[in-house]
Amino acid sequence: MVIKMQKAAKHDLMRTTNALSILETIVNHGPLTKREIQDNTGISWGAVSNIITDLHAKKIIEESKCQETGIGRTPSKYDISSSNNLFIGVDVNIEGLAAVLIDLKCRVLKSIRTNVVRNDPENILNQIKTLVRTLISENKLSSKKIIGIGVAMQGAVDAENGISIFSPHFENWKNVPLKDILEKEFGIDTYIEHDPNCMALSERWFGMAKGIKNLLFIRLSMGIGMSIIINGEIYRGADGSAGEFGHIIMNPSGPRCYCGNYGCLEVYSSGQSILNRTEEGIKLGRTNISEGNNGELDFKSAVNAARQGDGYILSLFGEAATYLGVGISNLINIFNPDAIVLGGELSSYHDLFFEKVKEIVKQKAWKGSRTNLVTSKLGSDSAAIGAATLFIQKIFSGEINKIML
Amino acid sequence: MVIKMQKAAKHDLMRTTNALSILETIVNHGPLTKREIQDNTGISWGAVSNIITDLHAKKIIEESKCQETGIGRTPSKYDISSSNNLFIGVDVNIEGLAAVLIDLKCRVLKSIRTNVVRNDPENILNQIKTLVRTLISENKLSSKKIIGIGVAMQGAVDAENGISIFSPHFENWKNVPLKDILEKEFGIDTYIEHDPNCMALSERWFGMAKGIKNLLFIRLSMGIGMSIIINGEIYRGADGSAGEFGHIIMNPSGPRCYCGNYGCLEVYSSGQSILNRTEEGIKLGRTNISEGNNGELDFKSAVNAARQGDGYILSLFGEAATYLGVGISNLINIFNPDAIVLGGELSSYHDLFFEKVKEIVKQKAWKGSRTNLVTSKLGSDSAAIGAATLFIQKIFSGEINKIML
Repeated sequence: MVIKMQKAAKHDLMRTTNALSILETIVNHGPLTKREIQDNTGISWGAVSNIITDLHAKKIIEESKCQETGIGRTPSKYDISSSNNLFIGVDVNIEGLAAVLIDLKCRVLKSIRTNVVRNDPENILNQIKTLVRTLISENKLSSKKIIGIGVAMQGAVDAENGISIFSPHFENWKNVPLKDILEKEFGIDTYIEHDPNCMALSERWFGMAKGIKNLLFIRLSMGIGMSIIINGEIYRGADGSAGEFGHIIMNPSGPRCYCGNYGCLEVYSSGQSILNRTEEGIKLGRTNISEGNNGELDFKSAVNAARQGDGYILSLFGEAATYLGVGISNLINIFNPDAIVLGGELSSYHDLFFEKVKEIVKQKAWKGSRTNLVTSKLGSDSAAIGAATLFIQKIFSGEINKIML
Repeated sequence: MVIKMQKAAKHDLMRTTNALSILETIVNHGPLTKREIQDNTGISWGAVSNIITDLHAKKIIEESKCQETGIGRTPSKYDISSSNNLFIGVDVNIEGLAAVLIDLKCRVLKSIRTNVVRNDPENILNQIKTLVRTLISENKLSSKKIIGIGVAMQGAVDAENGISIFSPHFENWKNVPLKDILEKEFGIDTYIEHDPNCMALSERWFGMAKGIKNLLFIRLSMGIGMSIIINGEIYRGADGSAGEFGHIIMNPSGPRCYCGNYGCLEVYSSGQSILNRTEEGIKLGRTNISEGNNGELDFKSAVNAARQGDGYILSLFGEAATYLGVGISNLINIFNPDAIVLGGELSSYHDLFFEKVKEIVKQKAWKGSRTNLVTSKLGSDSAAIGAATLFIQKIFSGEINKIML
């Protein structure tokens, strides 16, 4: 028998709670006057004044004058400072490494990218460190101003212990204690998170799923990943492997998947499967596009051919969309989520498949479900930004207390 | 941007919190001595003594002497009283109506059942009222001792407003304000809940999923329903239609389902589909069993024939198991839950399909997922008991305060 108990009341929380509440209001709606903050939070004028003075003295917020209205005194407006309490987010991805520097209001102050030079662990780790070091030095920041580093990783991630368990595209990458490595290097608290989760957080903060409680974010790229947000929190499952949407079985007698099963969604709808079948089509003379100079076909060439009307490749996108539509219908029937966001590399090519996906979902998903199905509008920094916001979320949930309120 | 804030501290909660914590410990582990309660809760001796005296005076708990040990004084043991704070649970099901009376420790004091006489709303409502009235009068209870009534309903349920939106097997049953009707009749607070959710709660309190955080409960009966428990709470989705596991699409070009789609899981694995195809088999002379005296085949006859080795009906159970196994593998890949419990009418016939389901899941579910797949061991009162425990859960979560602590 399991009973949920109320947490014992913590008497000393009141002041911190009020400060966090005021900070939250400024983050969401700033710049604001004290009066607006009072109206928004319901906290007394005295407490608002004291806390604002305090936050200002600590340079967490900064003051600006309103434009003259001609009537009476002009009240000051307060907004989050962009020179303190900064966060770094890194997206470690075989298609490239990205890093961003953001402030408490999630404004991107700097964004940098680099290609993967060699995919062995030593090189990848060095590239990650170089990115972080560049962001710190280019912005002439001492690491003391950086509150935390968040890293978005592909593959399997042990978020609790900060370990990247494996990454499907890096050689010999196993159980890398990324959190420890970066904390030792920079003396800055670090979190590691699975990349679809980071992208889902970005969608909830800035993207297509603002303020949504129950959200599924599907990362469509060479593989297919999914993040599940339930009640605003990342849902990981019993051992962290929840969200294997790419390996739900669409047809038990379908083609073999690299995972060992047959007829997984990835066999039909992933970028890799479209690429593999384009190569087959080239061999069989069913399409006119050719492999690149290095003998390897890149996904962009397949996309270009489809956009120019190549029937064979269009049919591959069509089949991918059909299976994806059925898979998404099943997700709607099971989760009845507020929204499903399709993101990842393939979402930039949504003109080739999204209408078909919507059509199938309209036919097949449970009638009356109000799930909103959309493609991501966030750019390629989405995972890095989401990784950086991991910290901000933890600050406001009271899980960590890195800002001296 | 959405930020989760800490709740403002409530200074007056401490005493209630301690009382609830002590009560919870007695519910889970009683009878216990004061010393054992102190060890278990970490609450001071003085507070434990005061609260125990208080709970005893209010007859919420009762005292018993330990057996003599021969060493020193014999301390009293305390356990939940069975003559106060009682709860009624009702399961409204086309296959029969069940009602139970339980105490705060979820001990079943009385259990009654009746068949549905006529399936029109007036008759069903009268039968529900008669069951509740019988439990109250047979136990010579005034309704003041009953803290609450919980009702498990099939079909669509608006739990928040206590409305049974529709029930698939009752005629003209639409938007029945069951909560209001019963509260008016008996003057006792009433909750309505979807029946797989009630059964899932029973599994978490007494059954195969004790103390489990993330649980899927599948009700296999004439249809297929599912309850999703995430972080110990019922997950309902955006508009309450989460858990439509019976209508995930197993094969888009499969047979038509009554919902209008093709190849839903219910087409292959529900009791109704096995029954329908048995009838087809009879017509085609592929099985020797015959329809009942009234020209209608009942499910039990199909089960008996299968148990006696009827090859055709065994093949129907085999196919049902295969599709159910693939469906459950997909659930594991998506949710990675701690446990999946198969319950409902068909789970009593698990000898005919469960080994096959487990075999398919072993082949097809994501390797390394530690999801425990089991069949329910709870009897036919499971939904009624779960409905009654709705109240107990709400008392311990502090959502309602019906016991004068």
